[in-house]
Amino acid sequence: MVRLLALALGVASFAVPVQANDLVTDYTLDNGMQVVVVEDHRAPVVMHMVWYKAGSADEQPGVSGVAHFLEHLLFKSTDNMESGEFSATVAANGGRDNAFTSYDMTAYHQRVASDRLELMMRMESDRMVNLRLQEHEVATEREVIIEERNQRVENNPGALFREQLSAAQYQNHRYGVPVIGWRHEMEALSLQDARSFYDTFYAPNNAILLVAGDVDPLAVKELAEQYYGVLPANPDLPERARPQEPPQISLRRMTYNDPRVAQPYVTRSYLAPERNPGDQEAAAALTLLAEILGGGQTSVLSQKLQFEQKKVVYAASWYNGTSLDATTFDFVVVPVPGVSLQEVEDAMDAVVSEFIETGVDAEQLARIKMQLRASEIYERDNVSSLANRYGRALTAGLTIADIQAWSDILQAVSEEDIIAAAEQVFDKRRSVTGWLMGQEEVTQ
Amino acid sequence: MVRLLALALGVASFAVPVQANDLVTDYTLDNGMQVVVVEDHRAPVVMHMVWYKAGSADEQPGVSGVAHFLEHLLFKSTDNMESGEFSATVAANGGRDNAFTSYDMTAYHQRVASDRLELMMRMESDRMVNLRLQEHEVATEREVIIEERNQRVENNPGALFREQLSAAQYQNHRYGVPVIGWRHEMEALSLQDARSFYDTFYAPNNAILLVAGDVDPLAVKELAEQYYGVLPANPDLPERARPQEPPQISLRRMTYNDPRVAQPYVTRSYLAPERNPGDQEAAAALTLLAEILGGGQTSVLSQKLQFEQKKVVYAASWYNGTSLDATTFDFVVVPVPGVSLQEVEDAMDAVVSEFIETGVDAEQLARIKMQLRASEIYERDNVSSLANRYGRALTAGLTIADIQAWSDILQAVSEEDIIAAAEQVFDKRRSVTGWLMGQEEVTQ
Repeated sequence: MVRLLALALGVASFAVPVQANDLVTDYTLDNGMQVVVVEDHRAPVVMHMVWYKAGSADEQPGVSGVAHFLEHLLFKSTDNMESGEFSATVAANGGRDNAFTSYDMTAYHQRVASDRLELMMRMESDRMVNLRLQEHEVATEREVIIEERNQRVENNPGALFREQLSAAQYQNHRYGVPVIGWRHEMEALSLQDARSFYDTFYAPNNAILLVAGDVDPLAVKELAEQYYGVLPANPDLPERARPQEPPQISLRRMTYNDPRVAQPYVTRSYLAPERNPGDQEAAAALTLLAEILGGGQTSVLSQKLQFEQKKVVYAASWYNGTSLDATTFDFVVVPVPGVSLQEVEDAMDAVVSEFIETGVDAEQLARIKMQLRASEIYERDNVSSLANRYGRALTAGLTIADIQAWSDILQAVSEEDIIAAAEQVFDKRRSVTGWLMGQEEVTQ
Repeated sequence: MVRLLALALGVASFAVPVQANDLVTDYTLDNGMQVVVVEDHRAPVVMHMVWYKAGSADEQPGVSGVAHFLEHLLFKSTDNMESGEFSATVAANGGRDNAFTSYDMTAYHQRVASDRLELMMRMESDRMVNLRLQEHEVATEREVIIEERNQRVENNPGALFREQLSAAQYQNHRYGVPVIGWRHEMEALSLQDARSFYDTFYAPNNAILLVAGDVDPLAVKELAEQYYGVLPANPDLPERARPQEPPQISLRRMTYNDPRVAQPYVTRSYLAPERNPGDQEAAAALTLLAEILGGGQTSVLSQKLQFEQKKVVYAASWYNGTSLDATTFDFVVVPVPGVSLQEVEDAMDAVVSEFIETGVDAEQLARIKMQLRASEIYERDNVSSLANRYGRALTAGLTIADIQAWSDILQAVSEEDIIAAAEQVFDKRRSVTGWLMGQEEVTQ
């Protein structure tokens, strides 16, 4: 503990440990439910999370948004709880709860005092199997998710643009369909659709219990067996093999015009490999590549385009390899007034080509590796973000061993690995270039 | 008969009938199977067809190509026939048989002497319910369809290009997935996948029997009842409601480079409405629009781009509204050597804009309507193409009444309807522009 607290004081004060061990214990219940305990005894609180290995990319066609819809409905009634009782009980016990849905997973979590862990397990295990869907609640909650789409997507040109980009990037995989759902399909989501997703995917053998905080792993195990261990596994759980992309062979471009856009910009995404069990090297190289090219003000794109050429107000690249299936490597460049989208796109391409020619700056790479190590250590200070990291990786098909090896794999990436990754991934035949523009520039 | 034969002698010799009646009889068997008989007594032959209302767009995700794969497997063994016996029997009886699969349907047909109709029904009704799928045949036939993909798609840059265009055009609907299947999914197609498609969709209540030729409708009905009427309906036949497109809001472009391309060209497709029961007017206007703009050497695009500007060697537009869900309106322009793809694309756009400004040439419209009427009458002369027209329309959700009304609806389209249709459909936010290029122009 002392070490972690000291590290929190500032980057300058720490010696980078070769391999910091998370205090992680994991085991599997007889019914197939995985349990992961992350100890952190600095405060008498606990984060209790259940992660389902089912997200929007596991939906059937035609019912987009049902994973997220069901997430909302899990706060309604069960055979043992009234609608809203779950969150009210958490709050009455001084805790906070929430849930979130993504392509590969749906997660439910509560942060409470450690002595309330049993109560959380009792309630969470109840709604894993005893959900009582009712027509009037389904109808009401459908309005809620449609309003959520209005707020987050329809009223946000950037979000609409990203939906169009994903649809163009993925030719076969459901990562091309928005997590929140296409509006016309959300409007038709039924009780039966939610029930079908629940019956298929909500079962202990498709879930991960993640408990992080001031707990004893053995005590957690006992409670987990008592509450989750008694639930029946779903013997018909489908194999998690989603439709994959065909080889991508065409360069794609798209333009979205919206009068609400004040600041036009260019994005570029390339289909990119994800982290896979025992095979994370390519993803590690891409992670560093994204940092070097566009991870902040000292990155290659910022330095060249923003400070030297003064063509952009912002330039960035990012990559997140924690994904069950193929992910993307992304760029954005936002031009200064008077510079065209074509000009910044060309300038971005030129900088990336020059980077591949020139190679990686060794000092920059060393600095970035140091920053990555530091941020991992900071993350340990935040048990909730540590738990999230485990949950996301495990639901994306990785193992505890992969998660714990990731830091060293990142550190082992060489300059040559990074250039090789860039050459491999930056193939425009697997890319989509998007222009987000205001109305005045409508192309019709 | 005399009238039809006379008409076949030449366009100049006929008076256009207001409404020519196809000699069509239709009824439905007790098990839900639709029967359509088209009489044509000029020769003692009959075309026997069974059309299933199931095509590639009815497939589950991940098993693309299974509709077509099953079509192949229907020529293998049943409980009563050996593998290959079906076609051998047709041939031994002096007939020819084949089958085809598209997005909305799968059809099996034989052309035989009229007195062999009963034999065809006996065999076709047998394989509707008694297919005996065997592992070794499935494995062999999978190689056959993969080889078919090699021949038709992988060895054909234009076909690869069209696959990429469709994938970019459709953001949610399975019309974006090729009928023959993505190769990586075809390679994994199993006996169980084929069995599942067969069990779901091959049943009399999902099929249309179409008999065209020298037959008596009452005799056909008797035979149909004897062979098809005794088959059980599938009570679990799913409603035919496939995932639909969200509103399309982004202009898309794509480029496919292939060293085998000798002649680069530009295509443009717009998402467009299809013919719907009782609502075929928009599709009729688009049908005429496609003819006027790019239906041949006298079309607007040919006249302007090929003969006046001499920029293209070929220009065309086409539209096929016989589709269960939203279809496309397509253009292609092929530049003369030395003219760039951008230049012909711009020239095409300029011609279309000018056309919308100027309006329809009344004489050209009258000439095209006359040609359409003539080609319908010629089609009557070919009982097989008439039967195909009924089969395609019925499996695309239209009724006999829609099919018979179509000709008059086409004739009633006005100049204003055509311009309104163009203004409605030519919205680049619902379009994909494709450039097919050789290797020398690779953009990377």
